[in-house]
Amino acid sequence: METTTSEKEAQKKVQKLCIILSKGSLDMVYPAFILATTGAAMGMEVHMFFTFWGLDAVVKRKVENLKISAVGNPSLGLPSLLGVLPGMSGMVTRMMTKRFKELKVPTVYELIKQAKDLGVRLHACSTTMTAMGIKESDLIPEVEDVVGASTFLSIAEGGQVIFI
Amino acid sequence: METTTSEKEAQKKVQKLCIILSKGSLDMVYPAFILATTGAAMGMEVHMFFTFWGLDAVVKRKVENLKISAVGNPSLGLPSLLGVLPGMSGMVTRMMTKRFKELKVPTVYELIKQAKDLGVRLHACSTTMTAMGIKESDLIPEVEDVVGASTFLSIAEGGQVIFI
Amino acid sequence: METTTSEKEAQKKVQKLCIILSKGSLDMVYPAFILATTGAAMGMEVHMFFTFWGLDAVVKRKVENLKISAVGNPSLGLPSLLGVLPGMSGMVTRMMTKRFKELKVPTVYELIKQAKDLGVRLHACSTTMTAMGIKESDLIPEVEDVVGASTFLSIAEGGQVIFI
Repeated sequence: METTTSEKEAQKKVQKLCIILSKGSLDMVYPAFILATTGAAMGMEVHMFFTFWGLDAVVKRKVENLKISAVGNPSLGLPSLLGVLPGMSGMVTRMMTKRFKELKVPTVYELIKQAKDLGVRLHACSTTMTAMGIKESDLIPEVEDVVGASTFLSIAEGGQVIFI
Repeated sequence: METTTSEKEAQKKVQKLCIILSKGSLDMVYPAFILATTGAAMGMEVHMFFTFWGLDAVVKRKVENLKISAVGNPSLGLPSLLGVLPGMSGMVTRMMTKRFKELKVPTVYELIKQAKDLGVRLHACSTTMTAMGIKESDLIPEVEDVVGASTFLSIAEGGQVIFI
Repeated sequence: METTTSEKEAQKKVQKLCIILSKGSLDMVYPAFILATTGAAMGMEVHMFFTFWGLDAVVKRKVENLKISAVGNPSLGLPSLLGVLPGMSGMVTRMMTKRFKELKVPTVYELIKQAKDLGVRLHACSTTMTAMGIKESDLIPEVEDVVGASTFLSIAEGGQVIFI
């Protein structure tokens, strides 16, 4: 019986990974999806909850236009002033996008589709949608449902919650 | 007996939610308190630990003057340059505050009071207070105590820790 | 037998703390290492995974030159425009560094060495290294290994994962 309990225990531990994505810059969206697809590929049940700026990652007209955050990222090694010249964020984004293409890193939408194929379940935050005036028809079809924080916390019960 | 164990297990899982708030911008303070009040309303034991910029959310003269982070949030859809014109962060903040008022979203201090009523427990980080020269009398009365990281990790033991 | 299970349960709960550091600004690197060293001092098994901008914290030529994020931190109380004047991030960084020195807060590298002495285990993200063109010889010797997301998720199994 002890063995059974331990097995259940071990199984339960890896069972569920719940990622709350609250940011919409490429440098945070990528880690979120890399964690999600990796977890799913390892057999975990993975849920993602898109809230605040993170909602952009599942809005049709935005998902392919996410930008990297060039300003306020002191580790980028750019003087901050350069970071705010018009188009600078776009330039850094293009540089990163180019490098990612060379390295054959998938685009965000490709990652989302991979995630979906691996069974990752995508939930959009209802409060954010109301606050930002986003309708269900604005979302990419890979989103499973629109839920509130309490539904998400119920889904996340017993899992590992990661806030990005 | 198995049932009892499973029940205890289930109970334990939802038991405790511990949110470390390290940021002081409205767009991070809101999700933190929405998660906290939602969790508490669902019967969870909820703790919040205010550290680094997050301490601002419980400092009397700052709690009603938190701003949204307009710069470095590429998803805001503003050219970065606009984000840094003096008063721009304030303008975006006022727009968001206005929209939130229309939607009857409570202010941060109202949310804090709701959280407190629901039993959420607020802890201020002692190291941050020393580093920033904040005294206990500078804190809103809803804060329960001033603790260090080790006390917080003890409080969080066995719970779900979320870093925002 | 029940006691044994409960004891194991309690032991397991505090056992492991896994911190994913995705940001390279001083104001996020400090909380990460303070949590890590505190956890380790309390007897927890602590792992850190350095990814995206967080990798800077373990790159030789960068670890002693991390900057605070002055732009886009509305709680800093600076008008955003000041935040982007060239050298401003540096000035805020110097002010904070000076204050930390007065308070005898260790530097980042000193914290890393303390962490290492306490048994904290440091893992660098292989994907980030490839994307940024960082070689193993560029890393500080305190880094134990270079691993991918799946290895990290395996290491983190059953532990508390915190994303910073």
